[in-house]
Amino acid sequence: MTRFTITATIGQPYDEVVPAVRQALSDQGFGVLTEIDLAGALKEKLGVDIDRQVILGVCRPPLAYEAIQADPSIATVLPCNVVVRAKDGTTTVVEAFNPDAMLGLADNTALQKIAADAKSRLEAALAALTPAV
Amino acid sequence: MTRFTITATIGQPYDEVVPAVRQALSDQGFGVLTEIDLAGALKEKLGVDIDRQVILGVCRPPLAYEAIQADPSIATVLPCNVVVRAKDGTTTVVEAFNPDAMLGLADNTALQKIAADAKSRLEAALAALTPAV
Repeated sequence: MTRFTITATIGQPYDEVVPAVRQALSDQGFGVLTEIDLAGALKEKLGVDIDRQVILGVCRPPLAYEAIQADPSIATVLPCNVVVRAKDGTTTVVEAFNPDAMLGLADNTALQKIAADAKSRLEAALAALTPAV
Repeated sequence: MTRFTITATIGQPYDEVVPAVRQALSDQGFGVLTEIDLAGALKEKLGVDIDRQVILGVCRPPLAYEAIQADPSIATVLPCNVVVRAKDGTTTVVEAFNPDAMLGLADNTALQKIAADAKSRLEAALAALTPAV
């Protein structure tokens, strides 16, 4: 079964990985449209503590435009999220939504092609980060 | 096959529906974390024209917290998007991402339950809007 995320584990501290992820995404043509401090938001709303993490909502405009022309409903999965999460002081997890992992894409060849393009760019961005040794 | 969105078509102009959607979501316990003017963004980046639409990224904090405890990867599909799109001057489409529609949920009973809760709240919010006649 297709896992709904693609993941890289990086042997570097969170504060170093966040800017590296931004650069790697930018190099693949993704702009960051939204940014959510999930730990901060849940601390504020519920008073609970979770691992430090940021949700980056990223978009490559030509792909987004092509996708919503193929199916306007695709707007509900835009932007594509990339989460950077501190695992511990020296290890950071980078996890992107896998555009392949949606039921309902199977019957639209144009969308399958666009999802594959987005996925390969996200994989390239994750591969550009230093993997954990 | 599970469609990846749930949709309502409303017989009211876009500018009236957007605040009604915000209220309906708030009534179901969803806060709006992000907001993207998709038509404006694509006009700016690509010079193209698409239907007026806003992507609201919504989150019900207790559900989000429960979900990421069951599986931290769920952060990649947070917040849940609700798109309001002008179909024409008097008709507006409201479309929410269907939390059920992700491959990879099938093997996690806790997540299935949370996704079902989120879906029923989104359906209630959409049902609270005036349907097109």
